Amino acid sequence: MSSNTPLLSLALTAVEACGTLAFALSGLLEAARKRLDAVGVCLVAGLAAFGGGTLRDVLLDRRPFVWVSHSEWLWVLLVLCTAAMVFLRTRHFEPTERAMQWPDALGLGLFSATGTQLALAQDLPGIVAVLMGVITATFGGVLRDIVCNEIPTALRDHRPYAVCAFAGGWVLWAAQHWGLGHEASLLLGAFTAAALRVAALLTGYTLPGWSSGADRS
Amino acid sequence: MSSNTPLLSLALTAVEACGTLAFALSGLLEAARKRLDAVGVCLVAGLAAFGGGTLRDVLLDRRPFVWVSHSEWLWVLLVLCTAAMVFLRTRHFEPTERAMQWPDALGLGLFSATGTQLALAQDLPGIVAVLMGVITATFGGVLRDIVCNEIPTALRDHRPYAVCAFAGGWVLWAAQHWGLGHEASLLLGAFTAAALRVAALLTGYTLPGWSSGADRS
Amino acid sequence: MSSNTPLLSLALTAVEACGTLAFALSGLLEAARKRLDAVGVCLVAGLAAFGGGTLRDVLLDRRPFVWVSHSEWLWVLLVLCTAAMVFLRTRHFEPTERAMQWPDALGLGLFSATGTQLALAQDLPGIVAVLMGVITATFGGVLRDIVCNEIPTALRDHRPYAVCAFAGGWVLWAAQHWGLGHEASLLLGAFTAAALRVAALLTGYTLPGWSSGADRS
Repeated sequence: MSSNTPLLSLALTAVEACGTLAFALSGLLEAARKRLDAVGVCLVAGLAAFGGGTLRDVLLDRRPFVWVSHSEWLWVLLVLCTAAMVFLRTRHFEPTERAMQWPDALGLGLFSATGTQLALAQDLPGIVAVLMGVITATFGGVLRDIVCNEIPTALRDHRPYAVCAFAGGWVLWAAQHWGLGHEASLLLGAFTAAALRVAALLTGYTLPGWSSGADRS
Repeated sequence: MSSNTPLLSLALTAVEACGTLAFALSGLLEAARKRLDAVGVCLVAGLAAFGGGTLRDVLLDRRPFVWVSHSEWLWVLLVLCTAAMVFLRTRHFEPTERAMQWPDALGLGLFSATGTQLALAQDLPGIVAVLMGVITATFGGVLRDIVCNEIPTALRDHRPYAVCAFAGGWVLWAAQHWGLGHEASLLLGAFTAAALRVAALLTGYTLPGWSSGADRS
Repeated sequence: MSSNTPLLSLALTAVEACGTLAFALSGLLEAARKRLDAVGVCLVAGLAAFGGGTLRDVLLDRRPFVWVSHSEWLWVLLVLCTAAMVFLRTRHFEPTERAMQWPDALGLGLFSATGTQLALAQDLPGIVAVLMGVITATFGGVLRDIVCNEIPTALRDHRPYAVCAFAGGWVLWAAQHWGLGHEASLLLGAFTAAALRVAALLTGYTLPGWSSGADRS
């Protein structure tokens, strides 16, 4: 653990807890849509929730993983999946997903800022640190989609998601570079990413794709 | 290496060898069904055989991997794949697969127990250790199916597989917790997982899926 | 870092730069064909370029990754992807891909030799070192195809690719074993792999697949 104040450490943990839940639910719904069995539901929810952070920790060579040092989260996940399998009906999927967009945006902001800050604490270059934030925020979803045999939505839906994490990461990097404290820059970066995501959701803005419109077909 | 008696170390090695062969054959058959070329056959067989253990070792930060310290296993795999490509006919796939169910159940038991015990030796919490056992036993198959562009059967076929590893892991954990020796709890955990798997095969028991039967369609 | 002369270190870096560019372009074209958005294009190009080397480094427990110690490469990648999205038209895909075959063959040779040599520097057995070379050279493409929801071409197109890396790795191993210097054996291994690949491209040689031609259908 490379966080340097107990307060920051606590804040990081709270932040990861929040986003984790929203991500787990996204995995759970995808697993349900694919008609996976109970094992599949738990595993895909777990991948969506912890995949991004775990990959970041493997790349940064950090141990223990969040789901090792806070293993109670695995129990929360098990209970969540069981409850969802018993109580959540197909007709609730759409509203659940729409309702989850807002905590998910929060999670996106918080995860990307956490990832970037952990990388900066290892004195990694800015672009690498920002990328670690993007990986933390998006790779849970990417792994979830790969296991469910889909092209990851983060890579093809032309909706800004990773891009918000990217922008928030740079804001955090700049804030820290210009002497802002750890907590302040974390909050600023997380807020930027989350706000951009919310703005994208509200305006329906889409990313440019391959430019070759005319000769594409 | 965290095993603490030569006997246990030997037992663990023998155990991994057994399961490895059954897993490699499952990868080999899947690769053949997908008409992969010689490289694909070897690689998918290798992933199925060593993928779970390697992922566990990356997560637990253990080196060397089993296929590094026992690199003769890579030669065995190469010879196995070559022999299978020359001698195994399509009409033999079904019987081969049915015949492999029993060593595979043994491998499931042994791998999950090994994985759980290695994690417990690092003083990880019970749920994490059990999960490491499940990963060791199932992720070879999961990676095999991902590479072959399928939703992993372990997550969707409603047949108890990972669940047996999960149960066996808890039995091992309880046994060790209550003072049983390393060898005894390893054997007990492995036996539980394997026996549950055999029982599931014999009775055709299936896991519950998403409960929303009526509004699913 | 385990390279032992500044010259070798420089050569290894130059080598990785070359191959990286060809691999990135292959990812870029695949992403474009799949109509991914801007994020997907950058991420798949990045996976194709750095995936093999990163997986090798995770397996060998080497840090920092090439894209961390030479993070300017991430900028090159971003610029490349942006330029390609603006300027590259669909009708240029085929010629681009054909033109890339030659630098790609060079990259194959160089990457596999680099990977093998880094593994040999850790005193790993020959077969493991050769396999690390194969992983370095091919897993970028494998990860690219997995993310794009395809069975990896390296495993199914019956064209020798990984096999060339395998052969080149053994030549390097033998050369080093018989007392050739680091630079000489690196060049010899890389040349062998690249030459085999070029020969395969020129002759259209294909790998044997599953032998059971008659009862396959």
